[in-house]
Amino acid sequence: MNGARSLVETLLAAGVDTCFANPGTSEMHFVAALDQAVGMRCVLGLQENVVTGMADGYWRMAGKPACTLLHCGPGLANGLANLHNARRAHSGIVNIVGDHATWHRPYDPPLATDTEALARTVSAWVRTCTDAREVGCDAAAAVQAALACQGQIATLILPSDASWDDGGRVGQALALPAAPPIDAAAVDQAARVLRSGANTLLLLAGGAVLESAQHLAWRIAFATGCGLMADYVNGRVARGRGRLALERVPYNTELAQAALAKYDHIILVNAKAPVSFFAYPGKPSLQSAAHAQIHVLSSPEQDPLAALQVLVEALGAPPAALPEAGLRPVAAEGEPSPEKLAQTLAALMPQDAIVSDESVSYGRGFYRFTHNAAPHDWLHLAGGAIGDGMPVAAGAAMGSGSLRRVLSLQADGSAMYSLQALWTQARERLPVTTVLLNNRKYAILQNEYRAVGAEPGPTAMRMLDLGDPDLRWVDLARGMGVEAARATTMEQCADLMQQSFGLARPFLIELMV
Amino acid sequence: MNGARSLVETLLAAGVDTCFANPGTSEMHFVAALDQAVGMRCVLGLQENVVTGMADGYWRMAGKPACTLLHCGPGLANGLANLHNARRAHSGIVNIVGDHATWHRPYDPPLATDTEALARTVSAWVRTCTDAREVGCDAAAAVQAALACQGQIATLILPSDASWDDGGRVGQALALPAAPPIDAAAVDQAARVLRSGANTLLLLAGGAVLESAQHLAWRIAFATGCGLMADYVNGRVARGRGRLALERVPYNTELAQAALAKYDHIILVNAKAPVSFFAYPGKPSLQSAAHAQIHVLSSPEQDPLAALQVLVEALGAPPAALPEAGLRPVAAEGEPSPEKLAQTLAALMPQDAIVSDESVSYGRGFYRFTHNAAPHDWLHLAGGAIGDGMPVAAGAAMGSGSLRRVLSLQADGSAMYSLQALWTQARERLPVTTVLLNNRKYAILQNEYRAVGAEPGPTAMRMLDLGDPDLRWVDLARGMGVEAARATTMEQCADLMQQSFGLARPFLIELMV
Repeated sequence: MNGARSLVETLLAAGVDTCFANPGTSEMHFVAALDQAVGMRCVLGLQENVVTGMADGYWRMAGKPACTLLHCGPGLANGLANLHNARRAHSGIVNIVGDHATWHRPYDPPLATDTEALARTVSAWVRTCTDAREVGCDAAAAVQAALACQGQIATLILPSDASWDDGGRVGQALALPAAPPIDAAAVDQAARVLRSGANTLLLLAGGAVLESAQHLAWRIAFATGCGLMADYVNGRVARGRGRLALERVPYNTELAQAALAKYDHIILVNAKAPVSFFAYPGKPSLQSAAHAQIHVLSSPEQDPLAALQVLVEALGAPPAALPEAGLRPVAAEGEPSPEKLAQTLAALMPQDAIVSDESVSYGRGFYRFTHNAAPHDWLHLAGGAIGDGMPVAAGAAMGSGSLRRVLSLQADGSAMYSLQALWTQARERLPVTTVLLNNRKYAILQNEYRAVGAEPGPTAMRMLDLGDPDLRWVDLARGMGVEAARATTMEQCADLMQQSFGLARPFLIELMV
Repeated sequence: MNGARSLVETLLAAGVDTCFANPGTSEMHFVAALDQAVGMRCVLGLQENVVTGMADGYWRMAGKPACTLLHCGPGLANGLANLHNARRAHSGIVNIVGDHATWHRPYDPPLATDTEALARTVSAWVRTCTDAREVGCDAAAAVQAALACQGQIATLILPSDASWDDGGRVGQALALPAAPPIDAAAVDQAARVLRSGANTLLLLAGGAVLESAQHLAWRIAFATGCGLMADYVNGRVARGRGRLALERVPYNTELAQAALAKYDHIILVNAKAPVSFFAYPGKPSLQSAAHAQIHVLSSPEQDPLAALQVLVEALGAPPAALPEAGLRPVAAEGEPSPEKLAQTLAALMPQDAIVSDESVSYGRGFYRFTHNAAPHDWLHLAGGAIGDGMPVAAGAAMGSGSLRRVLSLQADGSAMYSLQALWTQARERLPVTTVLLNNRKYAILQNEYRAVGAEPGPTAMRMLDLGDPDLRWVDLARGMGVEAARATTMEQCADLMQQSFGLARPFLIELMV
């Protein structure tokens, strides 16, 4: 068996059965091995950022890693932005990068790059295989690394001779290392603060915003009166009826400061201290009150359920039913607005929908109106690198077995970064409804420009508007095999949404906003 | 004046008057400075690989650097593949990357990345400004670095506080450092070999395939009987009537070995020793005969004109007229084929056309049929990272003042990597005719798979074909504001080409092959 075959068999033995790929010449033996092995689902993306974004979305819903297959340093480079987002979402990915044969590389052929240097910028674990006999072991270690610390990126670089040489051996699946234990002193400290009566916020992130953790967090809040809030971005948040109506720390620095001003203590549960997305002249980086004390109950690589459970016990917090949900909004009518779209989403979203949210500035207020929707999962752009919405939607659909409808809320400027994802949605017949928010501008940047102190002049506007020529999303979607229609009113949008929910394939609604 | 303003004024003073951009929040002060300064043409790309590819194409035709404007590490990551290609083409680019404020970065906000590590993988020069007062000096040094060594990538990382703080000073343009001198011993050695009567090849690359250098190379060949050949890829080759009918070293390893077998000596003029693009089991990396001796007349960072001039003098090679051109082919008819397309190109190509060639496997034989076309420049995918054809076409059009027709020969699989370039072509009314070769597959990979020893099975084919669903390029082009039509015969293709040559805007021909 050659190295490539041992790699595929090791991945399958370790439970990795989905491969998002954009292969090249140096990966042909790996591709051939996929033909020989049984059980690996291979999904093609037409650009690598689509490939890596799909792997991210897959993890968020499946809770297990997929592997990627990328072509040399430049192929990895193309997929780095969504690996960056995946890293921020704490998604586990076995990121496989083919490369030149070990003995060819010193000749510096055209595609040669410092692949390891690129990989290190996004990966918790990087290894280059240099011997076909070790590929299986290396692959088993990569899967272990991807599953560790609540999920991380493990990059395995595979020179083509390690792939085609004989001597491959299937690597044995390795045990998942235990998460770093919760520090008893941290629990005592958190319990003391919560009992003190001081204004305290439990700031939740990562696995702490999933359903089981929410029930524990609510017991703590119910027993102590502390506040509960979620990070501004999270890989996956359980939301809707039967879940907590968690608000996010706002994006806008002033709003975030106002929301956090009253808290003397902030206890972090897999969250980081609240920091603004960008710096502004004369404004602080930290969004919490200057006097507030920050306490770490659990860091992002620890198990948040374990942390909350121990804290519940330390406080003796009794079981408590979550607050009753309010009324579900009704679908809105007339001219589109962010509020109306959120209401319509809340009214129509099917049970167990998945929302892939790259609505950027248009969607900052969507949360408030959707707490009472049917139960659903909401996936954020976790690393701020635009272009993950449509790939994550595709990966999330596959990660949930195509059994749940995905709503892909997508700003137009960001959509252009990875529009190739629509093709994979069509090819794999994925149940994704994209609501493409066509405002013909980089709205967030026009706002940021005004924050600098002036209206954009003609030169600046050439870089901030998308209106010359207008992007025609119905044509773009059809060009990639995705059925699409334009909506200019909320009624049309609602009708198209409902029609699309019955389809076993993707649909794109170009909503003119 | 703030740092951003000093940056823009320094660039303009140093002759950099074109900025390819995809800005973000941390670049808003730079964008505002562009509004205040006079003379910078700003061109928006809807994804960063389009931005960097345009900067590459611009250099190849303008012979001076443009600057880019990218947003933080992930924005740079998105543009790395075409920076890699630009590096291999020896294109000079002032690559400007905005980043977090120096005092914000330690908080590790979501977009934070190791921007310098990413930059180093493609740049000859990297500097992070940490003080608004030094931005002007740093920018002048970046321009100098971009112009040095026949063109290289200089990356200037600009934290947003260095941009918005006051104290900026315009940097004085710095003198271009002299190219490393041609080594007299290398000239003597080359002259001795050429006089010896042994079979010798002068292998040309970089500036050695431009027109003036071709005349000098021909004098050497005419006087000594040596062979002349060009590297497989070059940033820009002067071709057509009145230029040398230079063949390239073939891509295919066997063909390359056959073409080079007869040479006992290979003299490199800004070329590297001929190395195969990819390694294959049991095949050598070097394509020259095992016994051949390799001599370096000039390395890629040296001045090839100076090198050839000194060699001409050492040999006393008299002036010699280039060989007469043969007949210009006539436009082909019937079913499309690579040969027919090349003939039609040669027949119809207008004077001084620019060919941006990302035809990949379909176009490997285009050279043979186009030697007798009207004079033109041919731009290759120099680094092998697919996705540069359409951005380079756009940049080349702007680098030649939109005065020359650009023919963008574009494979479909590669086109999907950076199709957003079509939008910029439309916005800037660029005279680009794209011939989109729609074969609905990764043809190169299907060939490579067969070279592994088998026909692709169903799993492999899912990763090598683009036919489910078919990409509809007329729709995709129209979705981005580019007029387009489909051709199924060479007559239709020829008609559409000729119509497009009269337009002051882009046009896309979807050629079904």
